Amino acid sequence: MTQGDAAGIGPEIIAKLYQQAPEVVRGCFVVGDVATMRRACRVVQRPGCPVLPVVQIQHAAQAMALPPRCLAVLQLGEYGAPVPFGRVSAVAGRMAGDCVVWAAQAALRGEIAGLVTAPLHKEALSAAGAPYSDYPGHTELLQAQAARHFGVNAAQMPVRMMLANAELRTVLVSIHVSLRQAIEAVTHDNVLQTLRITHQALQALLGRPPRIAVAGLNPHAGEGGLFGREELEVIQPAMASAQAEGMQLHGPVAPDTVFMRARQGEFDVVVAMYHDQGLIPVKYLGVEQGVNVTLGLPLVRTSPDHGTAFDLAGTGRADANSLIEAVRMARRLLASRKAGLENDPIGSATIIS
Amino acid sequence: MTQGDAAGIGPEIIAKLYQQAPEVVRGCFVVGDVATMRRACRVVQRPGCPVLPVVQIQHAAQAMALPPRCLAVLQLGEYGAPVPFGRVSAVAGRMAGDCVVWAAQAALRGEIAGLVTAPLHKEALSAAGAPYSDYPGHTELLQAQAARHFGVNAAQMPVRMMLANAELRTVLVSIHVSLRQAIEAVTHDNVLQTLRITHQALQALLGRPPRIAVAGLNPHAGEGGLFGREELEVIQPAMASAQAEGMQLHGPVAPDTVFMRARQGEFDVVVAMYHDQGLIPVKYLGVEQGVNVTLGLPLVRTSPDHGTAFDLAGTGRADANSLIEAVRMARRLLASRKAGLENDPIGSATIIS
Repeated sequence: MTQGDAAGIGPEIIAKLYQQAPEVVRGCFVVGDVATMRRACRVVQRPGCPVLPVVQIQHAAQAMALPPRCLAVLQLGEYGAPVPFGRVSAVAGRMAGDCVVWAAQAALRGEIAGLVTAPLHKEALSAAGAPYSDYPGHTELLQAQAARHFGVNAAQMPVRMMLANAELRTVLVSIHVSLRQAIEAVTHDNVLQTLRITHQALQALLGRPPRIAVAGLNPHAGEGGLFGREELEVIQPAMASAQAEGMQLHGPVAPDTVFMRARQGEFDVVVAMYHDQGLIPVKYLGVEQGVNVTLGLPLVRTSPDHGTAFDLAGTGRADANSLIEAVRMARRLLASRKAGLENDPIGSATIIS
Repeated sequence: MTQGDAAGIGPEIIAKLYQQAPEVVRGCFVVGDVATMRRACRVVQRPGCPVLPVVQIQHAAQAMALPPRCLAVLQLGEYGAPVPFGRVSAVAGRMAGDCVVWAAQAALRGEIAGLVTAPLHKEALSAAGAPYSDYPGHTELLQAQAARHFGVNAAQMPVRMMLANAELRTVLVSIHVSLRQAIEAVTHDNVLQTLRITHQALQALLGRPPRIAVAGLNPHAGEGGLFGREELEVIQPAMASAQAEGMQLHGPVAPDTVFMRARQGEFDVVVAMYHDQGLIPVKYLGVEQGVNVTLGLPLVRTSPDHGTAFDLAGTGRADANSLIEAVRMARRLLASRKAGLENDPIGSATIIS
């Protein structure tokens, strides 16, 4: 687990995770800063209960030998005294970036099974300067590390974000771009690539071919061309290519009912055409249970679907449920990987040559 | 209540409404076709229970004098034998259109208190020819009748669609256009007009100034211009104009969390920038409870938020809950109108000169 931005809620939700769900953290450890994690344990300490013991380890393997409820921390470097809560800081940005890079490399060389990342702060990452200021967030940082590992460029290693909670999974064609740009990103190649990544990931996760619903871009999925032609001209042809590869697809389905239908069990996953189309329903019932999974990389990476919540940091009131679910999801993904299923995308990079 | 398309589920959900919620239909009557409504009552008849009595009335006022559980029908004309279930038909389209026009005119001349409309079928309406083929749906038909009543053109009588269920209300800046066109429709005037209509309607409904959340157009509401500039250049200025008129606004809020926050009670209503942004969360928990309210017209009109469901018509399996909620909502709107609140938009047209 990467510690995330030390000025945010990352360290304290990790401490809560050890308090509230000791059974899910067996074999886990934190890559970060011992002093920051000790402070977080004090923040979440409950009256009458002992403070969680923080143990510094030198190698990943040592985490397996610790007694339960011991919070193991691999210290990466010297960062001085813990940063103040709730303020953008270059030190916290650099520390957060260092943790992600170390964890990505450790996963790529097989030293750790997977990553669960606590939230980082984009402005802090930017304030940290090179190389971190080049990356908007986790996904791009991880993609760059993986591409370097395989000696390819980042564009050859397409990734997609999957959001999942207990009721709904959705994979997004595009994420952090304007709605105008998101419409432009609905291309044959992007949709087909999203379908391939989704199919492979869900096949591995479920152990069977997934039932994939493809959302339309326009109201009523275009109503036969009346409210937009992207369904006819882009999405349907991309779906036809994917179906020729053996995928089980439904749609394009009207966006306003596809998520409701998936929630009711009709589909295993919805491919959403843009950020808010997928995130509105995933977050609607509350963000606490949502998990973010990066698909397409040759490593398992999950994270909670919330940010650093600077306004809550240091209060001990942040909710650890999304992080708990993120660890559970990482374990499920690793178990399916271990089961040696044939099409395991999570263990094999999808490299475009 | 208008009967809706006779080949769809409209007549049978009306019959179910009388079976399941007799307390909410006191004083209501159906404008439509007696033979069609008798068939619908047979379709939904439960074993061992008597068929609902259908009584033909000549004037709206007669509906008030009938005993409970009597289904009063005002017959508009001669339409022949009931049309087959589940097929587009010009006769059904014309009948559905006639009912809506009669009900709109009756409401405008004060003969009925308000309208609840059962679903019509766009293709059938189109097949019916002039004048119905000029109107994509209910909203435009009603708008045209109201405009004629006031001697203005339709563009001077802006309407907006509100979707509401027990947890969430949302008003849409645009509805049945492509996503590209919806982005173009996010103009200063359209957003401001939506805010005015929303404020007036919710003020009347709640009896106090509503807390209105304004959704952004782009992911994260543009993240300060990083993912699109419509929030900075269009939405915020429109909000400033509306705030100068005394409205209580919040936002632009990130679209992926604004509906969740409204559901948790933070806002009374969300102004959504396009069709699916608002409809995805309203429908996510199931369409049975959703109600569609037309705002901006000088009459009360509600409807269920589903269509004709030709595949279900005649089976008796259609769910009447959304229609039941639509009648309840119409009664609440009429009660607030009757309470004579100062800014009652539902009782007063918003005419642009």
